[in-house]
Parts: sequence; C-alpha cells; structure tokens
Amino acid sequence: MSALPDLGPKPRLGYTPNPLERVSERRGDAAYVDELEAAPGAAAYVIAGENIVLNRFADRLDPLFSLPAARAWGVEETVLLGVTGGHGRFGIGIDPGHATLMKARDDLFVTDLRSLAVQGLASPDDLAALAEAKALLSWHARHRFCSTCGAANRAVEAGWRRDCPACGAQHFPRTDPVVIMLVVDGERCLLGRQARFLPRMWSCLAGFVEPGESIEAAVRREIREEAGILCGPVSYVTSQPWPFPMSLMIGCQTVALSRTIAVDTSELEDARWFDREQVTAMLLDRHPQGLAVPPPIAIAYHLIRAWVEEVPHRAATIPIVSS
Amino acid sequence: MSALPDLGPKPRLGYTPNPLERVSERRGDAAYVDELEAAPGAAAYVIAGENIVLNRFADRLDPLFSLPAARAWGVEETVLLGVTGGHGRFGIGIDPGHATLMKARDDLFVTDLRSLAVQGLASPDDLAALAEAKALLSWHARHRFCSTCGAANRAVEAGWRRDCPACGAQHFPRTDPVVIMLVVDGERCLLGRQARFLPRMWSCLAGFVEPGESIEAAVRREIREEAGILCGPVSYVTSQPWPFPMSLMIGCQTVALSRTIAVDTSELEDARWFDREQVTAMLLDRHPQGLAVPPPIAIAYHLIRAWVEEVPHRAATIPIVSS
Repeated sequence: MSALPDLGPKPRLGYTPNPLERVSERRGDAAYVDELEAAPGAAAYVIAGENIVLNRFADRLDPLFSLPAARAWGVEETVLLGVTGGHGRFGIGIDPGHATLMKARDDLFVTDLRSLAVQGLASPDDLAALAEAKALLSWHARHRFCSTCGAANRAVEAGWRRDCPACGAQHFPRTDPVVIMLVVDGERCLLGRQARFLPRMWSCLAGFVEPGESIEAAVRREIREEAGILCGPVSYVTSQPWPFPMSLMIGCQTVALSRTIAVDTSELEDARWFDREQVTAMLLDRHPQGLAVPPPIAIAYHLIRAWVEEVPHRAATIPIVSS
Repeated sequence: MSALPDLGPKPRLGYTPNPLERVSERRGDAAYVDELEAAPGAAAYVIAGENIVLNRFADRLDPLFSLPAARAWGVEETVLLGVTGGHGRFGIGIDPGHATLMKARDDLFVTDLRSLAVQGLASPDDLAALAEAKALLSWHARHRFCSTCGAANRAVEAGWRRDCPACGAQHFPRTDPVVIMLVVDGERCLLGRQARFLPRMWSCLAGFVEPGESIEAAVRREIREEAGILCGPVSYVTSQPWPFPMSLMIGCQTVALSRTIAVDTSELEDARWFDREQVTAMLLDRHPQGLAVPPPIAIAYHLIRAWVEEVPHRAATIPIVSS
C-alpha cells in the first residue's frame, strides 16, 4: 500500500452545524414569539421559492434582513428558526414570482441555495440557518390544504405545525430520509452518474428510504436496483440536512458481495468501479480525463474522502449490531 | 470490571428484516400488477386502521388472505408490498369501523401491530411485511386530498404515489425520521419515562429529526431539551422501521458532557442515571423493584443491550467522521 494521500484540511459539510437554538418548547408561546419579532436584534432570511434573497453591499452579501424590510415584499409565511445570542432568527417566505424583479435590483442578490453554498457566498452558519428556513418554507408552500379532508389549513406554533379548522387534523413538517452510500470492493469503489449531473461528475448512489424499511435495507435495495450489485454489512458514516426540497441525507458505506454492474438506465446514466488512485485524483481535481466528485458541501464528497483516507479494509471490521 | 453479563441469544429487532422484494421499478406497470393480483399465489395483509386482521385457525393464526377474501369487507386502498417466491404480496386497507364486528367473529383474530409483535403472534417475516403495509396504508388514509390545492387525489403506481388531477402535484409516501439514543456517562446510562409508558418501564430518549437538522444535531438537541444534559460525539448503532404511524427509528449512542438532569415534564415524567448492573437486571427482567426496559421488538432494547455488552468505554473510541 502506498501512503495515504494528503487531501488538505477537511472542509465543513454543507448546511451543518446549525448555530441556532431551536427553542422548540416556546414555539407555542405567542407572547414570546411576538416579543422576539419586535426586539431590535430580530432578523429574517428571505426565501422566494427556490431562490434566496440577500442584501448586496459594496463589499459583501448579507442574508439577514430586518423583519419590516423582509415583509415589504408581502409575506406568504413566517417561521421561527431559533435564537442566537438572544436574538430571534426567522424565515420569511415570499411569492416566488418576485424573484425575477428582485434579480434586476442593484441592492439585492438573488440565487439558489446550492450556488450560494458551492460558491461560498454565505457563511457556514448562515447556510445552515438557510437550509432550515428553506426546508420548512418548502413544506408550508406544499401543505396549505389539509391532506385528510381538503380544507384550507393554517400555520400555528410559529410555523412548526399546520392545523385544520375543518377536521382538526394536525400536520407536522416533513423530512424525507434518503440513504446515500459508497459501495466498496477492496481497493475499488462504485460511483454512478445521473443524466442531470454536470459533465464528468460521478457520485455515490442514493435513494429514499421507503415505508417499512430500515436504513440498512434501503442501502442494499437501492444498490441492487440501480447497479445490480449485492451488498453486505452497512456502516453509518455521517448525516446532513439537504433542503432540496426537504431531505435528510444518511451517509453510509457498504461492502460489495458481487462485482458485475447492471445499470438501471431509468435511474442512472452509468455506474463504474473506480480505484483509490483515480478517486484521489478526482478529489484533488487532478484527474487526467477531468472526472470529478461532488464539492465538499455535499455529503458524497465526505463519504468518498473518508474511504480514501481510511486504513485499507477497515470497513470490513466495523462492528455491526444488526443487519 | 466484572465479566460481561450473559443475556442469552440476541433476539431479532422487530419489523426487520423485510423478506419481500419491493420490485419498485414495476409498480407503474399496470399489466404486471394485475397479473400478480390474479395469480393463484397472490395474498394480502388486511389492515383496519390501527388493527391487523388475521385468520384464526384451530392451531394457528395466519395473517394472509386471498385477495377476494380480503376484499369482501370493501377496500379503501390496495398497495403492492412486493413479491416473495414470485408471488405478489399486497396490503389492503379496509374501513377501521369494521374492526369491532370482526373482533366478534370466531374465524378472525383482530389486534394491533404492537401486541402482535410483543406477543409473538406473527412470524418475524410477516411482522416486517405488516409494518410496510401499515405505514403505507396509514399514509394513504391521511392523504386522500392534495395538500397543495385541496382537491381529491388518487393512488397510482400500485399505491406508491398519489396524483392530483386538479393541479398535477405528485405526492410520495411519507416516512418520519426519529432519533432514539442512549446517553452514556462512563458506567452509567440515562433512561427516561413518558407518562404513557407501562408502570416501571424506562427507555431511551427519542424525538423527531427537524427540517434543517442532522442526525447528530437532533440527538444532542433532544437530550438537552428533555433532560438538560449536554452531549458530545454521537455514534450510530442501528435502525428500524416503526409503523406508528410511519417512522424510521435511527438508533444512536452518545456521550454525556454534563451530569445534572433537568427533566422537561411536558415531554418526560422522569429521567435518571442507571448503572450497568441495574440495567442488566432490567434486561433480564430481574430488577429488585421490577423496573424494566422495552421488549426486544423495540430498538431501545438493542441500544441498551449493545451498551451493556460492549467493552467498557468503547463508545468513546468509535471513530466519528463529522459531528
């Protein structure tokens, strides 16, 4: 074995950690929430559908607005994200249709949350708070009617629940668990490409956890369905909120029990085995054919890097409590 | 340190593993699904709200019905769970109001899925398939109207999607990620009691993962909110589908950084530190005061047992890729 490659300092996983204290037990306390809103330190992130709105100053971008400024565009929903240093931080959802007009303004900068993260245009703390705001506001935008009876419902608990006045049903924000995994076969790992990816980008395979399924079972099913590979033990690596629109990425590593790839072309454009040297070049952006892996904001980068940096074959020795 | 206790053979975690092949890529193929339904080997699990309906024979219970028999009570929803040995397995949801009448019949046995599991009245394979059926049918029962526009929607893809004919929105089954964790402080662990628990039962703390939150952050937030304890590194142990109504339990262990418990009585009745000896007695059902932990069908049992059986302090050495 050659020495472990030096990939430089480990970058922070995007949208983590979230610096806000969520004060979940006080969301139903209207007087407390009103007081937070009215206090001079209160500020809001502004979301217009898939777009994030920022203040554009000569020397910097600032994603925080005063509540009156944020509300000047008309409010579809206000949610309490949490507090920091005693100051309330809110998410304000506005009509997505305003984005076009706002993009034309010199004092604003409007872009999507992925670009904001990849281009480093917001601090890691702001990105995490924006992820919370975007996931929660995306849920509101799709849940203004009661799924049990069809009546218009209304937000309560500072944006953390929607209640139906007709049938009494309570609806809570939704978060979709997704497994994303690196399949390892000795000194090789499996990467795939979706047609929508940037050219030459390869990543880990992923898919939604289904009802009645464990994380471990979802990992094995997705790999079998998408690439025709059978897998053995599954080990967990790390997790990440992924607000597109409202997922929780559960990052795992697993061991291949078979080697012949059969790509499901309805899901993937291609899937291939890559050796450690190739993947190291991709992480360092020095691959001879220009092949690349996702940027450090994405959990896939960290799953791939963790394998490249680990002691070879350690995966097989990670203790598994249950399959 | 005394020797590790002998807790006997490790029981299977409830509702796992699911023996059905989900054939997710064929759910949209109506001819294939019709053929599966019409084939002689087809069978269905019957769910009436929170109740599971089983055939009661002289010598055994059988949770599988032929499709015509299952449909005799009227069908609210049919879902394709998967195939086993080439035979289709379906979940059929019927009016929950039928349960009372069915309970009076000699040829049927009607009970909830928790009791079925705890009392060992169904095989582990059937319990896993029933968990899938119950989670999916619970979702249908609460999502017959479009949450985007309020119109009545309809099930497609053999029960794996609901489409809105009015606004075109597609709705997918929901699964709620929940963290459940054992907090460890050297030779002690933290257990809590909810008021709804059986008397003298203590368990791990748990809570829903929120939008914009990682698994690790949710673990620390829930422990801080419910018990006032600060926690450090989080390690993943195992996971379990928990169809009450549609959760994914993500089982973790974490290390306490503080020791003084402050119970949030709106969430917990009590929380206490228990030493390894006490917990071992609770696992073996030999605690002098009759204190107990949840049964082996629940992931809490496995989290607690994994700690009791582990080499002391191993938790602190589990490698953590990211917090």
